[in-house]
Amino acid sequence: MATGKVWLVGAGSGAPDLLTLRAARVLQQADIVFHDALVNPQVLELAAVAKRQAVGKRCGELSSTQRFINRRLIEAARRYANVVRLKGGDPMLFGRAQEEIDALQQAGIEVEVVPGVSAMFAASATLNRSLTRRGLSRSVVVLTPRIGQGCADHDWARAALCADTAVLYMAARQAQAITRALLAVGMSAQHPVVLVENASLPDERVITATLGELPACARELGHGPALVMMGEVYAGLMAQVQALQPKVA
Amino acid sequence: MATGKVWLVGAGSGAPDLLTLRAARVLQQADIVFHDALVNPQVLELAAVAKRQAVGKRCGELSSTQRFINRRLIEAARRYANVVRLKGGDPMLFGRAQEEIDALQQAGIEVEVVPGVSAMFAASATLNRSLTRRGLSRSVVVLTPRIGQGCADHDWARAALCADTAVLYMAARQAQAITRALLAVGMSAQHPVVLVENASLPDERVITATLGELPACARELGHGPALVMMGEVYAGLMAQVQALQPKVA
Repeated sequence: MATGKVWLVGAGSGAPDLLTLRAARVLQQADIVFHDALVNPQVLELAAVAKRQAVGKRCGELSSTQRFINRRLIEAARRYANVVRLKGGDPMLFGRAQEEIDALQQAGIEVEVVPGVSAMFAASATLNRSLTRRGLSRSVVVLTPRIGQGCADHDWARAALCADTAVLYMAARQAQAITRALLAVGMSAQHPVVLVENASLPDERVITATLGELPACARELGHGPALVMMGEVYAGLMAQVQALQPKVA
Repeated sequence: MATGKVWLVGAGSGAPDLLTLRAARVLQQADIVFHDALVNPQVLELAAVAKRQAVGKRCGELSSTQRFINRRLIEAARRYANVVRLKGGDPMLFGRAQEEIDALQQAGIEVEVVPGVSAMFAASATLNRSLTRRGLSRSVVVLTPRIGQGCADHDWARAALCADTAVLYMAARQAQAITRALLAVGMSAQHPVVLVENASLPDERVITATLGELPACARELGHGPALVMMGEVYAGLMAQVQALQPKVA
């Protein structure tokens, strides 16, 4: 039986023109597209001739959902030449790509990953603040916190403390527990923090704070995906961001 | 006097079709492009009507070079409407973007950053290995090592140790000193390592190793930009990569 190919494509941070040229071409040639709930509808329009299937996985749902997605990708590759799995950001950072790659390769199906622009780069562009900075930041840790699930609870907090700049994905809704853990490992309550919601989208929002103010500030966020960014590179950002968006009192 | 705008544009990891749609549009409208030595000539061809100026800065050169670039960008913005500063990867990660942003803003010139695909995402796509993985890696540190420059020498090594996955930029040519520092902070000599040179380019090269083997393996690299990636997510990679590229003995 002839077998198609599956492309794991990064849709980028949200703005449709932050897609790569390669991703746009692969979408245009797709027979079927399985996409995350968060992917911008304008990006999907590029897949003009493809069937579109939402696989609305968000963090926290049952892992059986992932097995279901894997099975649908395998079935699609047995029917169609070009199958696209479209994910927000870059597939290889918090995208659960490995589970899909492994399942497809075990089924003898060719997989190719097309990189994308992760939200932290779009957020950095909005802020006009580099993640690294000569003399101030030579290391950036990107992580998703693990709250209240056992003895290794604070490993992520120590990783955040060890690097000069830290970017927390899927963290803003747990701001109180995160703040507590970071203070517990010795991060200062005065540590500069910035929240960026819906990076690169028209309803993008920026809130500057300190670590101590993070829980109160996070309550001001809406329902979009939000990054928590922290480090000395964000010191003094407030005055500049105020022009863009009023700071939460 | 009318003043132009400066766009700091990420050229992506090397393959011309890993440029974003936005970056392609900005290049097409550029009046003048200042580009790093490492930017792919095919990407520059998009800037069809622009003057092109190589500003061949590589790490290790004098910082006066950066001040010279800043001055040229300011002068260009006073002559042209659309000035592009094109950088490899994403401008906000090891791109020294902040120095250019600050200099331009102090001169009253509008700056906009256009994100790009950083080399670690292109390398991850090549390897078919996700930087994060459920149950194995929730944190990725991205850093550039600091070798032999004072008492805080090993801070970067501790940051590498604290995160589940570590990606070292501008490191492969200092492999011996890096290996020594990582062993000194307690990383195992058996820790899985993979070197990716010229990620996403036709002469891309992959070498799998352990930390103990890193110095010997790094000597096999050519002159292209290379990433050193390490972590349990790269365990068992060797067999798969051998099909792609013979492992260095």
